[in-house]
Parts: sequence; C-alpha cells; structure tokens
Amino acid sequence: MRNSTLSLSRVILCLFLIATVIPVSADGSYAEDRALIEDLAARYLFALDFRDAKTYSETFTEDGILDYGTGEIKGRKAIFDLIDGMHKRAKEAAAKDTSGLRPAKGSHNISNMVIKVEGNTAKMVAYWYHHGNDNPDRKAAVTSYGHYEDELTKVNGAWLFSKRKIYNEQRAEWAAPQDQGNPAW
Amino acid sequence: MRNSTLSLSRVILCLFLIATVIPVSADGSYAEDRALIEDLAARYLFALDFRDAKTYSETFTEDGILDYGTGEIKGRKAIFDLIDGMHKRAKEAAAKDTSGLRPAKGSHNISNMVIKVEGNTAKMVAYWYHHGNDNPDRKAAVTSYGHYEDELTKVNGAWLFSKRKIYNEQRAEWAAPQDQGNPAW
Amino acid sequence: MRNSTLSLSRVILCLFLIATVIPVSADGSYAEDRALIEDLAARYLFALDFRDAKTYSETFTEDGILDYGTGEIKGRKAIFDLIDGMHKRAKEAAAKDTSGLRPAKGSHNISNMVIKVEGNTAKMVAYWYHHGNDNPDRKAAVTSYGHYEDELTKVNGAWLFSKRKIYNEQRAEWAAPQDQGNPAW
Repeated sequence: MRNSTLSLSRVILCLFLIATVIPVSADGSYAEDRALIEDLAARYLFALDFRDAKTYSETFTEDGILDYGTGEIKGRKAIFDLIDGMHKRAKEAAAKDTSGLRPAKGSHNISNMVIKVEGNTAKMVAYWYHHGNDNPDRKAAVTSYGHYEDELTKVNGAWLFSKRKIYNEQRAEWAAPQDQGNPAW
Repeated sequence: MRNSTLSLSRVILCLFLIATVIPVSADGSYAEDRALIEDLAARYLFALDFRDAKTYSETFTEDGILDYGTGEIKGRKAIFDLIDGMHKRAKEAAAKDTSGLRPAKGSHNISNMVIKVEGNTAKMVAYWYHHGNDNPDRKAAVTSYGHYEDELTKVNGAWLFSKRKIYNEQRAEWAAPQDQGNPAW
Repeated sequence: MRNSTLSLSRVILCLFLIATVIPVSADGSYAEDRALIEDLAARYLFALDFRDAKTYSETFTEDGILDYGTGEIKGRKAIFDLIDGMHKRAKEAAAKDTSGLRPAKGSHNISNMVIKVEGNTAKMVAYWYHHGNDNPDRKAAVTSYGHYEDELTKVNGAWLFSKRKIYNEQRAEWAAPQDQGNPAW
C-alpha cells in the first residue's frame, strides 16, 4: 500500500516535471486543430470545383447544415444531392456547348481564416472568392466573393462542418447585412 | 535519502523515454506561433473591412507602428483614430449615396505568409490584395495588391503587430522599391 | 532485479498517464509539418516574384523536379537556370521599356493547401493565381490561375519540393485535364 502511494507520488512529480520541460503549452493543441480545419476547408473547395460531391458532402457532419443564401440544407444526403445535381447540370451544359472553346474552369478560394476552438467544437469565419474564365476569351477574372460563418465539430478525431453559412456579395439578397458588425472577434 | 535519489533517477529515465516517444520536436512551437500569427493577421482584416477600429487597433502592441505609405502612425490610439476616421467617412459617403445601388463591399485578403519566430519576436512578410465592387454594376474585381513587412511581439501569450509596413502596387510612391531584392528569405 | 522491474512498470504507467494528460495526439506533428510546408510554399513565391532564383531553386531537393507544362526540369541547377533566365529577360525588357510607366509588378499567390504527411514525405495539392498590372493603366487584375500537385521530402528537418507539377487554366495545353477527377482526397 505504502509502496503504491510512493509510486503515485513519483508519477505526479514526473508529470509536473514534464509539464515544465516539454515545449507544449496549455493551448498546445490550437495549432493541431487549426491545421486540421485548414485542411478540411481546402479539401471542401477541391471537391466543389473538381465535381466530387461525395467528398464535399463528407466534409459535413451527418446532420450538417449548408446555407448559401436560399435557406438551410440539412444532412449529408441533402447536401450531396444539391452539389451532385449542380455538378451534373454543369457537365450537361458543357457537353451541349458548341462554341469550340475549351471547357471553362471555376476555382473557389478561401483566405483570412479566423478560428476559435473550444474542446470538440470550433467557430470559423473566413473570406472566399471565385476565379473563373467562363467568357469568350477564357480570360481569368474574379467573379464573386464573400465570407463564411462556420461551426465545426470534431468527430472521432476529424473536424467537420456542422454548419456553414455563406454570404455572397455578388447578390444583394445574399450579401452580408449592413451594420451587422464584425463577425469575427 | 537513497530512496529519493532512486526516485529522481526514475524521473530522469522517464523524461528521457518520453522525449523519444512523444512526437514533439525541439522546434515544436513553430506551428503554435504560426497558427496564432495567422489568426491575428486574419482578425486584423475582418476588423478592417467590417469597420471595427477597436479590434483593428488591438492587433497592435500599445506602441505599435502602422505605415501604409504616408509615414509611421505610432501607438494604438493614433491607429484607432486613423481607422475609425476612415470607417466614419466611408459610412457618411454611403449614407449620401443616391445611386440606388446596394452598398459596395471591400474585402482585403492575406496570402503567402512567410514567418520566422525567434522567442517572443517574429518577422513576417506576406502578400495582400483587395476585392471590391464599388462600381455601377457591383461587379467583383481585384482593385489593388501589394505586400506586408511585419514585426511581431508576443505579449502575455498573444502575438501582436509591433510594426506593419504596407507596400501597395496601386500607387507608384507606395510600391515596393525596384531591386530591393527578396524581402523574404 | 525486482527493483528495476518495479521501476520499469512505474515508467510505463507514467508514460500511459502522460499520453492521456498532455494534449498531443498521435498525429501531433501534423501541425508542425504543415506549418513548415506552408512557409516553404510562401517563400517559393516571394523568391519567384522578387527575382531570387537561388532561393527559388533551393525550395527543391537537389534532384527536385519542376513541371509547369513544358515537361520536367530536373535538379536544382536546371531549375535555377530556368528561373534566373526568366528573371534576366524580365529585367532586360523592363530596361528597354520606353512607355514612361513605372515597372509592372507580378504577384503569384497560393491558397487551398491540402496536405497529407507520411513520415518524411508529403503530398500537397493547392490552388495558385497571379495578380498583375502589366497594362497601360497599371491596373490590378487576376491574369491567370490553376493548381499545383506536389510531392515533398523532409531533408535534415527541412521540407522541400521533390516534384512540383503546375496546371495553368490560362492555356488549353496546360490546363487540368477534364474528368481527371478530384486531385485531392
């Protein structure tokens, strides 16, 4: 009995010393969570632009919510159907194109990621913008931009979007409300 | 006495084993510092674009310096006054607008962050660019770009700008000097 | 003998407790690797735009490969020669310019970094885009965009490109192949 008490005290001392020696601060995991969330946000955009609706939908939790201005789309299945339909219509339009031009390519980008982590949930606000060349010269252009307001959840070690709200400055009804204040902190 | 010596040797052995088992390298904190600095740089831009001069000024140290081409603005108070004045004039101009158009929205972005950390100070160089739609069609456009040369200080665990120098390719007198060489490393 | 067995069991218990207490997951180094790779990718672009062919070539391994559409350029020496030649021709063209305009400035940017690390190698896919003002009004514009498909190697603690393949949507023959699927995961 006395022996195991001693043993425990040594372990506690050991833990105390480790906390002062190993360069991991109390908030040492912010970098790890942020890294994983940045990767998620980038994979979401590759899946969107390279027509991979399955991977896109799997960046959300099972009951995740997407709202790009027309109201909330709820759950992976509904999100998959929306994006897959969008991709199919884009492919059909490209197949019917008789202009002789090469297919246009759209690229969505993310920047300015502000991320706050609290345990297994996180909040993110960030900017997005779209590059496109869907014009007769296949000339590069910024075609739209806006910002995201996101909620994330860590599920089995993987960060996923539980809610993504997209504001789009290209359309008055989807633009960020005036005088809403700073959505970041 | 002999007992505590044994105990210490066990703790040392324990620490030695930990160092070889736990995947934290000696420079394990670069990721953490970089993550916090990226977050700061993003919060700075949200505060700028969403008219939050208080948060903007608080991304600087108390004696922080901002120089966007017209010389050095020194200290949080002066930086707050500058940005708050800019925001107020923008609001007044929007209020007087009789075009019937929805308010224009500007978005500053950061990319290409090169960050070197040395203890509680850091240097950063990065690119910036601005998206805007202040035109009769509210059409998205890149309206300016340039780069930052920053010095940062860690104060009570929080990274802050101690100096931000902004180069702007939109105006000859604010553009990066020719043949200055690579500001990064 | 019995004593050292006891000691070992305490160390093992200690390690077990540490694994549950210290916030470093098994993949705790992802943030560190990602941070270093992000920094590398940003330094590559500063070197490219600020005419520093030496630093540019040194972001590759000794036998690194660059392919921007015209085939594989192999090794630091060949990569240096390519970029240095490009920089020299740009300087000569600027010197001969008689327009009276200030020199134009090009800025390449990276975004959407998707990074997978496996030991001392990594794969990255990411987007790039170029801002330029090489026009009579020195007006900012997005002039091209595309994506990277990269392989990286950690050499003596430093991440370097072992292969960078650049897709460019500005030219049909350099654009991402249609229906190649999602290059990310």
